[in-house]
Amino acid sequence: MFKEGDWVLIRYEERRYLRKLQPKSSINVGADVLRFSQIVGKPPGTRIGKFEVFYPTLEEIIVLGFERKTQIVYPKDAFFIAFKLGLDRSKRVLEFGTGSGALCAVLSSLAGEVYTYEIEERFYKLATKNLKKFGLGDNVKFHREDFLQADVSREFFDSAFVDLKDPVPYIDKLHASLRDGATVGFLLPTANQVVDLLRSLRDKFGGVEVLEILVRNYKTIAERFRPQDTMVGHTAYLLFCRKLTA
Amino acid sequence: MFKEGDWVLIRYEERRYLRKLQPKSSINVGADVLRFSQIVGKPPGTRIGKFEVFYPTLEEIIVLGFERKTQIVYPKDAFFIAFKLGLDRSKRVLEFGTGSGALCAVLSSLAGEVYTYEIEERFYKLATKNLKKFGLGDNVKFHREDFLQADVSREFFDSAFVDLKDPVPYIDKLHASLRDGATVGFLLPTANQVVDLLRSLRDKFGGVEVLEILVRNYKTIAERFRPQDTMVGHTAYLLFCRKLTA
Amino acid sequence: MFKEGDWVLIRYEERRYLRKLQPKSSINVGADVLRFSQIVGKPPGTRIGKFEVFYPTLEEIIVLGFERKTQIVYPKDAFFIAFKLGLDRSKRVLEFGTGSGALCAVLSSLAGEVYTYEIEERFYKLATKNLKKFGLGDNVKFHREDFLQADVSREFFDSAFVDLKDPVPYIDKLHASLRDGATVGFLLPTANQVVDLLRSLRDKFGGVEVLEILVRNYKTIAERFRPQDTMVGHTAYLLFCRKLTA
Amino acid sequence: MFKEGDWVLIRYEERRYLRKLQPKSSINVGADVLRFSQIVGKPPGTRIGKFEVFYPTLEEIIVLGFERKTQIVYPKDAFFIAFKLGLDRSKRVLEFGTGSGALCAVLSSLAGEVYTYEIEERFYKLATKNLKKFGLGDNVKFHREDFLQADVSREFFDSAFVDLKDPVPYIDKLHASLRDGATVGFLLPTANQVVDLLRSLRDKFGGVEVLEILVRNYKTIAERFRPQDTMVGHTAYLLFCRKLTA
Repeated sequence: MFKEGDWVLIRYEERRYLRKLQPKSSINVGADVLRFSQIVGKPPGTRIGKFEVFYPTLEEIIVLGFERKTQIVYPKDAFFIAFKLGLDRSKRVLEFGTGSGALCAVLSSLAGEVYTYEIEERFYKLATKNLKKFGLGDNVKFHREDFLQADVSREFFDSAFVDLKDPVPYIDKLHASLRDGATVGFLLPTANQVVDLLRSLRDKFGGVEVLEILVRNYKTIAERFRPQDTMVGHTAYLLFCRKLTA
Repeated sequence: MFKEGDWVLIRYEERRYLRKLQPKSSINVGADVLRFSQIVGKPPGTRIGKFEVFYPTLEEIIVLGFERKTQIVYPKDAFFIAFKLGLDRSKRVLEFGTGSGALCAVLSSLAGEVYTYEIEERFYKLATKNLKKFGLGDNVKFHREDFLQADVSREFFDSAFVDLKDPVPYIDKLHASLRDGATVGFLLPTANQVVDLLRSLRDKFGGVEVLEILVRNYKTIAERFRPQDTMVGHTAYLLFCRKLTA
Repeated sequence: MFKEGDWVLIRYEERRYLRKLQPKSSINVGADVLRFSQIVGKPPGTRIGKFEVFYPTLEEIIVLGFERKTQIVYPKDAFFIAFKLGLDRSKRVLEFGTGSGALCAVLSSLAGEVYTYEIEERFYKLATKNLKKFGLGDNVKFHREDFLQADVSREFFDSAFVDLKDPVPYIDKLHASLRDGATVGFLLPTANQVVDLLRSLRDKFGGVEVLEILVRNYKTIAERFRPQDTMVGHTAYLLFCRKLTA
Repeated sequence: MFKEGDWVLIRYEERRYLRKLQPKSSINVGADVLRFSQIVGKPPGTRIGKFEVFYPTLEEIIVLGFERKTQIVYPKDAFFIAFKLGLDRSKRVLEFGTGSGALCAVLSSLAGEVYTYEIEERFYKLATKNLKKFGLGDNVKFHREDFLQADVSREFFDSAFVDLKDPVPYIDKLHASLRDGATVGFLLPTANQVVDLLRSLRDKFGGVEVLEILVRNYKTIAERFRPQDTMVGHTAYLLFCRKLTA
């Protein structure tokens, strides 16, 4: 049953909203109003007029609830990354930079521990705030620091994810901080970055794959089934590889 | 360090192989031979000639190691499904049919418990064999049974995934077996199936989304960065929804 | 040299405008102004500040200059259709409905004669106006009439293109009006329409192909080469076939 | 009516064949045989058993009939290129290199004159042979010569298409040989080539667009409508621009 203070996902036709159940609050869509006092005490899946109310998934929390000052890592990419890295509760994962914390939240849901590094104060604050707001990230260690300056033991991490404009200067330190065979992912918006990174990986990292994930959404009217008119054309190239021994 | 009996991923240029380290065995690619006795005692990430050897991720186990008698659920779809369902260790998930067990292995890695149902004896045996072979699925309860005949308590599952040719006859029983607001996914190869299912969901399930995941793989030569010549054109439409209360 | 009354394409960074060179007119983009008196007498390819001025192609006339009351047939689809139909100056082509005249303009540029039919007065007027405005369509015969009511000789057309919500009732008359082996194209926004049409073609039309054309546009900054953030996700399914003899 | 010596397109289920009607010849597909003597005197669109016989379109001639020693320009790209260049019978077009002649055949079908240049003897011979074989290219002037060495008047061409590994050294000569505002297209398999070309175009060519054309083919069974399992993942990036005046 929904209770005061719960985060809920509210659907109204194709639209989605994430709201906290404050008793005197309400939501207006078009001419329709849903007072939150109508929801408290009701089970998830409750429909009131055109409104449908559910508990949110992690995807919905990230997409609808995370504040962002930069492009977030899209869930379609984040899910794929998390699985390509082969995470489980026994794994210690390195991430830099933290950004808005979207990928951090996904890594945290799968790995044992996440160490995340962020140079910029405003992102460091934003990510910690985003995760705390939704009770996420108990196993995350936030660092407000350039990973290049970080004091990290050799062969400390089982996996790493790198989301930086120019990851090339970080390759040697990254290599040193990873266990042999560790899985690594990179998120790179431009083809130029991929080309530069491919050059710098040589002999240090193997099993290289580069790919993009495209999601094609469809309209859901049974009598007129067809793709949506517009789609996200590009988020980023994803590059995966593994640490080779010296 | 690799030891006898370990499953390993062997890369040779763009090619990938999954092998068990039997001491007297070896692998031949082109004119090159890698004897497994050369690998035992070495760390993951070891490179011998053009061969690179790693521990496999779940994705690699499914794609390269699972025997199949039918199309498997592709990892690109499986990863997305698992996250859209919003699974974690507190969740009990229903799956039917089991098929070759590929999605079952992914659900098992995220959920608390997985109950999976399969009518056909040969698939039931195949899936149990595939998971056991790689030490997966401790939290999976396999049933050789049509879910329509299954003795299941009302409101028992937090989530469900359905991979059947014709899911329409299962909608009422599915609805009854789910908790309020439960997340549900369907995998549907054809547009006709999507249209039929959209019609049958009305008033029972809300928050409907239909989408496809496309993966575009790139060649990894820095000087000639470009997409691969061919790509997988279609695996299935994915439909997600949630149980509405009565 | 540009002269008064010419239609010109004006580019300003990524933006494109189609304008008629009226001597006292001008165009404003951001803080910049281009007076058309500056262009007259200059050659195409002239650059003035951030403005670049050219003669427009047919694609640019259709996309930027055609008035529309409905979705037009996109040039990416129109070009492909025109070639799949195998048109040349010896061919007489049937089109219905005319819509805004976009495809009609493309067919007209390749075929010998185009007969186009449109039920709705407002589209009939719009299409004739659009083509006349740009001096196109000398070889087009416009009919304000439902093709089902049209008085057309048997085996009169070499090719046909059909852009209607429900083409199924037109199949028999279409078949009768075409020469043996004639190429035919259909534009269909939804999967349901494709399924219905595939059923109705059986035994009357062969060589069936169904496809979609997707255009992926890229940003053109050399240092940051990457696809555009959004893309057109869907315009229509295209179905091609040929008349079988009885 | 089909007669001896005609080129015909033969369809058998999803398969397509291009054959010349030699009276004593035949085609075998599976257990079925079609003797060409059965076709002569029949109209296009004739169906004999599972065979359907038509006159081929230019697309089918290129894809099925052109001999190739290299990757041809795919019709999906060729059609789009031809229209983006804004060709008509009043236009003189430059092409280099000729390759197998696929794009040359398309340009020839739309433009007034085509001047095509090819360094390699074997491609020069192949392209002339391919076009002659099907009676195409009356308005094409073939040159076995590097365009860089060609004796070409200034401002001679209305349009140009370039399909070369490294077009950068050709940019100045290309610019000189084009009329002001001339449309130009480039076909570039790799992202690196696009980046290099974007750099070299600056200040000489404007109105730059870069794009890819993707074709998604569908299965044509009404009861199981869905995309084909595999698709062409990449042919080339297309870059379009126009000559700026000096």
